[in-house]
Amino acid sequence: MAINKKAVRSVLDKAIKAKRSALTAEECKKICAAYGIPLPRDAMATSADKAAGAAKRLGFPVVMKIQSEDILHKTDAGGVVVGVSSAADAKKAYNTILKNARAYNRKARIDGVQVQKMLSSDGAQEVLVGAVTDPSFGKLVAFGLGGILVEVMKDITFRLAPTTKSDAAAMLKDIQGAEILKGVRGSDPVDRQALATIIQNVSKLVSDFPEIAEMDLNPIFARKKGATAVDVRILLDLKPKAAPFRPSQAEILAAMKRIMNPDSVAVIGASSEDGKIGNSVMKNLINGGYKGKIYPINPRADEVLGYKCFKSVKDIPGTVDVAVFAIPAKFVASALEEVGQKKIAGAVMIPSGFAETGEVELQNQMLAVARKYNVRVMGPNIYGFYYTPKNLCATFCTPYDVKGKVALSSQSGGVGMSIIGFSRSTKMGVSAIVGLGNKSDLDEDDLLIYFEQDPNTEVMAMHLEDLKDGRAFAEAAKRVSKNKPIIVLKAGRTAMGARAAASHTGALAGNDKIYEDVLKQSGVIRARTLNDMLQFARGLPKLPTPKGENVVIITGAGGSGVLLSDACVDNGLSLMRMPKDLDAAFRKFIPPFGAAGNPVDITGGEPPATYANTIKLGLEDDRIHALILGYWHTIVTPPMVFAELTAKVVEEARKKGINKPVVASLVGDIQVEEASEYLYDRDIVAYPYTTELPVNVLGAKYRWARSAGLL
Amino acid sequence: MAINKKAVRSVLDKAIKAKRSALTAEECKKICAAYGIPLPRDAMATSADKAAGAAKRLGFPVVMKIQSEDILHKTDAGGVVVGVSSAADAKKAYNTILKNARAYNRKARIDGVQVQKMLSSDGAQEVLVGAVTDPSFGKLVAFGLGGILVEVMKDITFRLAPTTKSDAAAMLKDIQGAEILKGVRGSDPVDRQALATIIQNVSKLVSDFPEIAEMDLNPIFARKKGATAVDVRILLDLKPKAAPFRPSQAEILAAMKRIMNPDSVAVIGASSEDGKIGNSVMKNLINGGYKGKIYPINPRADEVLGYKCFKSVKDIPGTVDVAVFAIPAKFVASALEEVGQKKIAGAVMIPSGFAETGEVELQNQMLAVARKYNVRVMGPNIYGFYYTPKNLCATFCTPYDVKGKVALSSQSGGVGMSIIGFSRSTKMGVSAIVGLGNKSDLDEDDLLIYFEQDPNTEVMAMHLEDLKDGRAFAEAAKRVSKNKPIIVLKAGRTAMGARAAASHTGALAGNDKIYEDVLKQSGVIRARTLNDMLQFARGLPKLPTPKGENVVIITGAGGSGVLLSDACVDNGLSLMRMPKDLDAAFRKFIPPFGAAGNPVDITGGEPPATYANTIKLGLEDDRIHALILGYWHTIVTPPMVFAELTAKVVEEARKKGINKPVVASLVGDIQVEEASEYLYDRDIVAYPYTTELPVNVLGAKYRWARSAGLL
Repeated sequence: MAINKKAVRSVLDKAIKAKRSALTAEECKKICAAYGIPLPRDAMATSADKAAGAAKRLGFPVVMKIQSEDILHKTDAGGVVVGVSSAADAKKAYNTILKNARAYNRKARIDGVQVQKMLSSDGAQEVLVGAVTDPSFGKLVAFGLGGILVEVMKDITFRLAPTTKSDAAAMLKDIQGAEILKGVRGSDPVDRQALATIIQNVSKLVSDFPEIAEMDLNPIFARKKGATAVDVRILLDLKPKAAPFRPSQAEILAAMKRIMNPDSVAVIGASSEDGKIGNSVMKNLINGGYKGKIYPINPRADEVLGYKCFKSVKDIPGTVDVAVFAIPAKFVASALEEVGQKKIAGAVMIPSGFAETGEVELQNQMLAVARKYNVRVMGPNIYGFYYTPKNLCATFCTPYDVKGKVALSSQSGGVGMSIIGFSRSTKMGVSAIVGLGNKSDLDEDDLLIYFEQDPNTEVMAMHLEDLKDGRAFAEAAKRVSKNKPIIVLKAGRTAMGARAAASHTGALAGNDKIYEDVLKQSGVIRARTLNDMLQFARGLPKLPTPKGENVVIITGAGGSGVLLSDACVDNGLSLMRMPKDLDAAFRKFIPPFGAAGNPVDITGGEPPATYANTIKLGLEDDRIHALILGYWHTIVTPPMVFAELTAKVVEEARKKGINKPVVASLVGDIQVEEASEYLYDRDIVAYPYTTELPVNVLGAKYRWARSAGLL
Repeated sequence: MAINKKAVRSVLDKAIKAKRSALTAEECKKICAAYGIPLPRDAMATSADKAAGAAKRLGFPVVMKIQSEDILHKTDAGGVVVGVSSAADAKKAYNTILKNARAYNRKARIDGVQVQKMLSSDGAQEVLVGAVTDPSFGKLVAFGLGGILVEVMKDITFRLAPTTKSDAAAMLKDIQGAEILKGVRGSDPVDRQALATIIQNVSKLVSDFPEIAEMDLNPIFARKKGATAVDVRILLDLKPKAAPFRPSQAEILAAMKRIMNPDSVAVIGASSEDGKIGNSVMKNLINGGYKGKIYPINPRADEVLGYKCFKSVKDIPGTVDVAVFAIPAKFVASALEEVGQKKIAGAVMIPSGFAETGEVELQNQMLAVARKYNVRVMGPNIYGFYYTPKNLCATFCTPYDVKGKVALSSQSGGVGMSIIGFSRSTKMGVSAIVGLGNKSDLDEDDLLIYFEQDPNTEVMAMHLEDLKDGRAFAEAAKRVSKNKPIIVLKAGRTAMGARAAASHTGALAGNDKIYEDVLKQSGVIRARTLNDMLQFARGLPKLPTPKGENVVIITGAGGSGVLLSDACVDNGLSLMRMPKDLDAAFRKFIPPFGAAGNPVDITGGEPPATYANTIKLGLEDDRIHALILGYWHTIVTPPMVFAELTAKVVEEARKKGINKPVVASLVGDIQVEEASEYLYDRDIVAYPYTTELPVNVLGAKYRWARSAGLL
């Protein structure tokens, strides 16, 4: 389809010049025509007689609508008459509409009445396509069912604009009422191609013209063949925001490498005095085992904890990669000036007393200095960060050194402390823990770009309350998540930003629904709770990527089997339909009254060999892609016996190159706690007293594998 | 409204005699008339001319429908023509309908064509009222939105029939699309009274006539004034099920008192040999500290573990309350015969090898003996049960003796073992743990009746996969839950029993949706996961009942505050809108940059006094009804300092008679684990590394308090 940008430009320029944020029907018509968005035939009438004439030309029935830039909700104003079926009626309708409109808003400027060929809704499905501008994500396109459904059920889905063809097609499947589009109760299926094209064109339009803030095509009549927008609304933003600060990816990476993996660290405000933050940071660097150079900075000391002290970073002889700030907020700007002059790549800004306490101006000043010298700032108001491959604890918290493949970040210090505590308690191996605090500069997309290429990191888990630049995050996440899972706990998700919006789409753009859809579009695995985030972070690096969708449950407890199956359905996992020969093979190992199919119920009183044989079979049969084990504590097979035999069978399979995810739920007396830990240490994600958690972790791995296109 | 049962009886008798399970339009009309269910005026036509005549009399437009007991889906058969607006059209429609019907089903017996006054759907909202017969719950009435909404969105709600007026009214609020009934986008609100009356009348009709298996009023046109059913379908069950075994409540209680709280226990199959079940049971009785009489039964022993042994229960001199069976399944029936003759109240049937291994007949035989002598049977295929007030461990599992106020039961042995392990690990105090296994006889409603009057039990938590007699359970739960919370983990909830059903309502009666609605109607708190059930069981007895809806969060970590707020919304808790004076009172204690409102953000670096002062204020102000604390680990206020001060402040308030639920989320390093335990031991429900779990427990308490009418 040929797109006519020039036509749109000219319409918009005129409206902007006139400072009109709502476009008229005529203007909307021109824009839709320019972007291949089909509308019904229409004409504009400025008198009752002209309305009758236009209606005759278009053919009855027609629908007549008030045209006024001051009346956005035409129906509420009594400004719409449908089903006008004669010239006499058209005249009457014209007069009624004008009378109603004047009663509704005495001062409204009225352009006339639009006479539109009335499309029959018979056999049509009403849908909505729209667009909004999100402060963080920018342009988004929306699709939903029209009329009451979208308003009451809020059944709508969003994507970053512009969308690809496949994204647009996916939106049709993503609404709750997707079934309706296929045609129910004898109605026709809609023309999916036509709808996807409208979605794509709307998304292109709003991307090409950032001044279009909101757009509604509501309703669109979608039929077996074709789709036509019956009503159009376009709203402009007359004061568009400045583009966010966005260094190139190469610049980000160059800085992040020096910050996260530095060869030298300066500590500004280093102190010998116990209890001072600058003392804690020094101790953590030293005791954490950091092997790079450590430069304490303190004008009133010659030496701190055995390290030569400098008055300023400028006095340090060699290159410095990163400076950790441990001085009060009011002294930060001038010290940062010196950091900039010394060409230090990053400032780890531990101090609080900035935007979080209302000192927004102080934070802006600090940031201005950083920008001037191209210093990237982590924080302020953070605990610092850990990078275990370098034995680096650039923080005033307690050190942590268990190495592993997950990098975690948190916007909040409290959540950061939870990460530390949970890590220590579960011996979770991490590559990094990063505090982002106020996110004055560095944020999640900078971290993604670093961890993407970091060979020490395989999984990322991030707690966040907002995204400063959602679009940059989404773009990075979409790419990175193809190779490494990204887990996000989005806090504040239930706040549902009630936004003042003049369009339907805008009113429906609850903040969380946008996050939900965009994070999904970006391949991010969303954790619903803090504990889920922590458990996913711990478990995902342990599980190999499944090679297919066939999940099999092997359980000693029938009751666990039922609960594990529930959890599979909750997590969108597919319980494999057991082939006959495989069923027979399992049956050889289990008692005659054990249950066939899936779950494989080996029954409660079985000896270790029954667990071993069935698990081995589950691992070795190529048609099975993941195993969920349900262990039941008995005297015949005590918990540690089960744990040891399972670890052994899995280990043997791994030696043969069989790498399948195995998770386990252990129910029984307290010995199942030790047995679960034993299994977890051997990369079998096992939990006591819960049937849901192991399946949730497996479910998260599957969600990632699917969105990364590995399944 | 006068109900005419006689008219219905006569219609049904005729249909049953003719073995017709689907009623004709004429019959449906008579039944609806008898129960005050409004239908449009209509007439029956058996020729094209008669159809035209009838249409003229009724007034155009009319809708015409095939009438055949062999064609249930009239639309699919092309058997419906709507909008017939002239005599000529009526004749044409008659012929078309007959032609289509014959093409659809050549053998269909056709009664004629119903000519019905066509109601305009303009200004009407389509809804559905229906009824189904559930194998466990019996008669249920359903309400939903009509047409596509109910079919695609499955937006429907169920209640036990007959419903009360308030239940019927509540159904209108309980659907997802409830908003639609209030009138959206300029449409009228529906006549709620008229709809509630139809729901009540349908529920009464199906209760009065159990042979009505399914019923559909779909659609009903609901208007501003009145509601009319446009289409009716009634299906009969020609072979109704026998009524379930249902002793009187007094009988149940008399038996249950002897079983749960016995003065004497016989162990059938008692043994001196280690490893035998009959040996474990004896040891657990003895070592558990049971003070009643213990009678081992074993024909081949004179003494077991120092207790005189009997050959048969009949040889025991005095009364015996309960017999624990520890013998193979095949010997059970004859031993049970003797138990019956001895007038023992209950048999704790540990042995497996019954229905669960396919031996259904053996189980039926056993049950027949029990019924003959009026012996109640727990199990078979169970671990037994614990009743701590009596120090009674009638089980072959390990003993458990921590006394508390929650009684737990499980249908599955695996889940039972989880209860034991979790209890031991968390030191959860329990009054009872009961295995129900195959539920051949005793089931959850028997337990409810016992625990209802048991002064040692304040909360019940039950794992179940099905309810043998859902109606008996619902009736007992509805009463009991007014005084004591009942927590249910319904396993198999995602199985969504795809049932063969001839009505819309029937097809929509997914098994889990019925459980969901009926459990809610019965005041039951549903746990979604095994771990939730365990945590609710542990936490609910600890929390006093809140006296109002005002929840306040006091947090040291802003990040926790956001996550705790999310959890409040997830749990339907109301964050109190902070009154000005109270806000000012909190502000006195917190730094100037601390956040006002709710959450009260005291900020991170605060000393113990700030926590103490704000918690004290939260407890002492009458307008606040529950507190959620968000602790953040700092050097200034370490975890145990926080725990001790909080426990002290809460204890002091309790001494003044202030009893509010307090829950806490502790984020920080591993010391928060010990601090959480310390708090939990002092009836403050506290968890480390999770913001959601404490709020979930508080949410469960609130759900109960609301449904018990205490809020």
